[in-house]
Amino acid sequence: MALAALTAFTAAAHADEGMWTFQSFPSAVVQQKYGVQIGAAWLDRVRLTTVRLSDCTASFVSPNGLLLTNQHCAEECLEQLSSPSRSLIDDGYLADGRAQELRCTGQVADVLVGTEDVTAKVLAAMRGRGPTGTGGLAATRGRGPGVETANDARRRALARLVQACNQASREPSGAGSFRCESVDFYQGGQYLLYRYRHYDDVRLVFAPEKGVAQFGGDPDNFEFPRWCLDMAVLRVYERGRPAYTPHYLKIDFAGPRAGEPVFVSGHPGETERTLTVAQLLAQRDVDLLPYVLRASELRGRYIQFGLQSDADRRLVEEPLSLLENDLKESRAELNALLDDDQLARKRSAEAELKSRIAADPQLARATGDPWAEIAQAERVARDIALPYTFIAEGAGFNSQLFRYARILVRAAAERARPDPSRAGGHADAASPMLERRLAEDVPIHPQLETLTLSLGLTRMRDRLGPDDPLVRQVLGKESPEELAARLVAQTTLADPAARKALLEGGEAAISASSDPMIALARLVDPEARALRRRYQDEIQAPVRAALQRIARARFAVLGASAYPDADFTLRLSFGTVRGWTENGAQVEPFTRLARLFERATGSDPFRIPPRWLAAKDRLDLDTPFDFCTDNDIVGGNSGSPVIDAQGEIVGLIFDGNIESIAGTYWFDETNNRSVALDTTMILEALRKVYHADALLAELGAPAR
Amino acid sequence: MALAALTAFTAAAHADEGMWTFQSFPSAVVQQKYGVQIGAAWLDRVRLTTVRLSDCTASFVSPNGLLLTNQHCAEECLEQLSSPSRSLIDDGYLADGRAQELRCTGQVADVLVGTEDVTAKVLAAMRGRGPTGTGGLAATRGRGPGVETANDARRRALARLVQACNQASREPSGAGSFRCESVDFYQGGQYLLYRYRHYDDVRLVFAPEKGVAQFGGDPDNFEFPRWCLDMAVLRVYERGRPAYTPHYLKIDFAGPRAGEPVFVSGHPGETERTLTVAQLLAQRDVDLLPYVLRASELRGRYIQFGLQSDADRRLVEEPLSLLENDLKESRAELNALLDDDQLARKRSAEAELKSRIAADPQLARATGDPWAEIAQAERVARDIALPYTFIAEGAGFNSQLFRYARILVRAAAERARPDPSRAGGHADAASPMLERRLAEDVPIHPQLETLTLSLGLTRMRDRLGPDDPLVRQVLGKESPEELAARLVAQTTLADPAARKALLEGGEAAISASSDPMIALARLVDPEARALRRRYQDEIQAPVRAALQRIARARFAVLGASAYPDADFTLRLSFGTVRGWTENGAQVEPFTRLARLFERATGSDPFRIPPRWLAAKDRLDLDTPFDFCTDNDIVGGNSGSPVIDAQGEIVGLIFDGNIESIAGTYWFDETNNRSVALDTTMILEALRKVYHADALLAELGAPAR
Repeated sequence: MALAALTAFTAAAHADEGMWTFQSFPSAVVQQKYGVQIGAAWLDRVRLTTVRLSDCTASFVSPNGLLLTNQHCAEECLEQLSSPSRSLIDDGYLADGRAQELRCTGQVADVLVGTEDVTAKVLAAMRGRGPTGTGGLAATRGRGPGVETANDARRRALARLVQACNQASREPSGAGSFRCESVDFYQGGQYLLYRYRHYDDVRLVFAPEKGVAQFGGDPDNFEFPRWCLDMAVLRVYERGRPAYTPHYLKIDFAGPRAGEPVFVSGHPGETERTLTVAQLLAQRDVDLLPYVLRASELRGRYIQFGLQSDADRRLVEEPLSLLENDLKESRAELNALLDDDQLARKRSAEAELKSRIAADPQLARATGDPWAEIAQAERVARDIALPYTFIAEGAGFNSQLFRYARILVRAAAERARPDPSRAGGHADAASPMLERRLAEDVPIHPQLETLTLSLGLTRMRDRLGPDDPLVRQVLGKESPEELAARLVAQTTLADPAARKALLEGGEAAISASSDPMIALARLVDPEARALRRRYQDEIQAPVRAALQRIARARFAVLGASAYPDADFTLRLSFGTVRGWTENGAQVEPFTRLARLFERATGSDPFRIPPRWLAAKDRLDLDTPFDFCTDNDIVGGNSGSPVIDAQGEIVGLIFDGNIESIAGTYWFDETNNRSVALDTTMILEALRKVYHADALLAELGAPAR
Repeated sequence: MALAALTAFTAAAHADEGMWTFQSFPSAVVQQKYGVQIGAAWLDRVRLTTVRLSDCTASFVSPNGLLLTNQHCAEECLEQLSSPSRSLIDDGYLADGRAQELRCTGQVADVLVGTEDVTAKVLAAMRGRGPTGTGGLAATRGRGPGVETANDARRRALARLVQACNQASREPSGAGSFRCESVDFYQGGQYLLYRYRHYDDVRLVFAPEKGVAQFGGDPDNFEFPRWCLDMAVLRVYERGRPAYTPHYLKIDFAGPRAGEPVFVSGHPGETERTLTVAQLLAQRDVDLLPYVLRASELRGRYIQFGLQSDADRRLVEEPLSLLENDLKESRAELNALLDDDQLARKRSAEAELKSRIAADPQLARATGDPWAEIAQAERVARDIALPYTFIAEGAGFNSQLFRYARILVRAAAERARPDPSRAGGHADAASPMLERRLAEDVPIHPQLETLTLSLGLTRMRDRLGPDDPLVRQVLGKESPEELAARLVAQTTLADPAARKALLEGGEAAISASSDPMIALARLVDPEARALRRRYQDEIQAPVRAALQRIARARFAVLGASAYPDADFTLRLSFGTVRGWTENGAQVEPFTRLARLFERATGSDPFRIPPRWLAAKDRLDLDTPFDFCTDNDIVGGNSGSPVIDAQGEIVGLIFDGNIESIAGTYWFDETNNRSVALDTTMILEALRKVYHADALLAELGAPAR
């Protein structure tokens, strides 16, 4: 019985579950399950060829800095490089020679070159500090008069370690730049330093048209079967030349076979697999459900707004598509948390861990009842959910102009205080970032600002009630629509110069300002900050402390057999190319090119680019297009290579199926699938549609 | 232990729970709990003065047919009686003498004058018939060749009994008309005949302005504290004269006291308190959540549509307000079904009933495992939920024009078959209703039709997937917007004459029709009907059979101590005037007039009518306005009198608080509250604002 139940929380060792760090990849499990030997050399090579982009993954595919990633990961760059007369998103791009490789401003690329366990050093620095500042020795820094909390101590120790690592990494030759970051696994069970080789000159080599890269658009997003050529090729440069990257992966243009063991290396962004049942239920009821309802209404307003004219449609296109992606994901997460079988599994895993802890009196004493503490905190979270969402998080004032106003009001208040005691984001060290943000010259669309702001105000009045004192103060005698329209029309904050002046003018300028959006932010801020403080003190802090005790207890029971939650650090997952069963029908793991043309309707998002229609007769319509695997991945793995046992690329991850979204909370091998582009299709497209012969040669493609 | 758990499903006897029939009102419980004697005379008088309107309740308040109900129950009548130059909704109405009492077309009023238990007769008719037609004797009617199911037998027996009752009620004097209806309590545990005195001439005497009757609009809907003068006075007429109604209730214009025991008589519409946990979860996940998401998006589209112009705002006002009411209610139901404590209580009540059944071998044999059967049916319901919703229920084709098309296509198919075997609504007997519906000359707004239809098509493509064969057939190469616009522009079905011609032309006309909306309905119908059949056979029928076995088992265990689910038949609930505790704060049970003026903003829905602003100085601002009680009521109780132990009216039900919506599933006395208008406020308003002296005299109001 104990053994059977234990399976529930050590399932990782039995299924293709886990986003493993390279330093503790379970090679023995892989050997046993698939008869495949993954040795240290394989791991080192894959690690050194896997690249972290701003919010995606890529891999080196030539010794000259060539990177393979997704078109959707390069979309911001494509947008930057477009002009009114030429859209690289719509038309795609192929550099004809290196001189035409165009720089993607702001895009960076990092390769993990070293890791160091600094847990002992951090714990030593934290020793003797109470969790909330009580019992600590007098210190010169920290919240309140002369008390440093364990949290502060931890943060300072990590900052010192990162700084020392950065200094040590400055090579005298000046060759290459490095960056260190601290990493916190298992809720503070393990601290590490990660050292990255850093590139900040990344250029565009190739991207197909969005019409084929993201064929199917929102309806197909998070779905499989799929037909997306979601690839892009970039190149990292150093001192104006292609970087020399001796570690790179070969591409096997024959693609994978069904059932073949494959590995995905990359940077999964975030999972929450160690949340307690109370947290999951609060996330379901307090976060996800209210969000998807608000987002659905906003979606309706955006769509209807876009129907007014072509110009309005274009205006609303980007915010709508971001919203729809969020909505689809949040809705799938909500559905996951309505799955009573999975919740029952979570409950029994929780019960089993508790009983294992109870069986060890010393561990039981050290652990206490963190689950009850979390449940209590989540009760508070439910109590303050509405004002917290609308006032503290600002859902009631949803507009870019209000966000500027809030930043300015807070910056003025915080900058008047001594640097070390300022709230997050307002330390002197963060000033350049804050100033850059306020100086950004992004266009503000008054109609959309009024739309989102009036919706926020309306729902705030609904949910907090028209008799809520702050609601009454905010609205006065105006309707939400009238107030929103007036604020947007009268504020000067759309002008970067006005924002700069207010930032530089500090508290005096903010108090004297007659800008109505500043006045609103001033009015709301005391309650927003009080709610934020309550959230931190009564929810965040106790939950964090309780989760640490759970993590420590789990570690005591399970040892290193558990993988840490995803956090956009480098991970490796294993699995096989396989479909799944849906409503009794088998979903095949591969799609074929022919169906792309059959699915085309001529209307977005099912419109095939002209170049493809013209090339159709030359193409082998039986070419495998996309495929799915049961590797355990999440967002951030976009652009990850799918690697075979020989260490060659056979596919390119670009999505997961809808069931993969439950992967935030748990891995269900029966239907959680990653979705990848087949390398066979890459060859077919580059050769016959794009005639990218030079690129194919650099990628080592076979001669025809 | 057994006793404690038993409480969970006999809670009715201990809390102020229950929508009791007059024939089994628990007077002993009331006597014991409140020391109040409710005898047969009290019950008879209240029953004979309580009136059922089309979808509300009212009560006789004078011997001359005067009825007290809610303004919102008379809103359709007020709309009918309005003209472009005069809105009775905006301005209210007070008849100056009987000649000015205006008829509300279509409004009926029924009084329950007799009940008869016919369970034995119905069961005798059903004996020997299998539940799904197997094992039955050959018969001339019914589905399939010569087999009558128990269901058919039951329906026929009830129809015969109703017919006989109606014939017996035809009084030779011709004085008054009567109507009989059959009633099914406890899932077929008890069958009754209810005999009503029927009035079909109902006239408007008084209604205040909507601005004060529904002050606070949607934001305040389902909330308390409240400030709504939601009252209207109607009068029933017979042969052109006020009806003589010797049974009426006196109004006590002093209103109720806090803590006073009060009784609510009326017609609660629908509760689902006997659903199993599997059904509740399916309702949550399959019905409510998808609906509130679709409705939220539609709300956004309506609101944005209404912002285009004043004309568009007016066009969208009514559908938007209906949608918002539904949405608020559905969302509160969804929240109720996310309440894990209540679900746990349901689970343990279910477990307790199961164990009580298991303890009695004979009962256990007769009962079987209906819970497992329901769970299995609900799994099927989850499997087919998406196509069922979009195709069978028509959410994918959401428009009035499509609904007409579907009715026409089905009528043609059904009318070609012999009468007895036709699907619901298409029997010859139902023909007049069908024809009236198709002949109705309600305006069709092409823009709104296109809006709802394109939204339905878009979400259908999303949810069923663009590769669903029917989705592909429906959309072809068009986008949802293009298709919707074309269908609405080209169909002739907005014209009642075109619909009439198609109905009369039958199958030949439908097959020959080139109307694109008819073509769409033809295309979709085979799959829609197949889904409907699957729903009936695999979900509805087994669930109904299983629920009957549960109901019988519960009856065997509990006897008559349980009340039947609400079904718009006459019920009586008991309780007291009391507030509740919300987020640690006490909500007082009374509001006062002063706050109405304080809450006014000048903008809808917080705009006070001019007559009230003018009367403000004359009013006693300390007058109690609305109050709340813990009586167990639901929608349909609107207009119900709140009656004191002496049998006098002290208030007028018009709403419940947001927590009362969970009353669909269970009664939680801690915070479920009904919301009523205080009779003190009625007097103050009629006297000082409306100067309705004749009306007050008829109501027996005290002299000044």
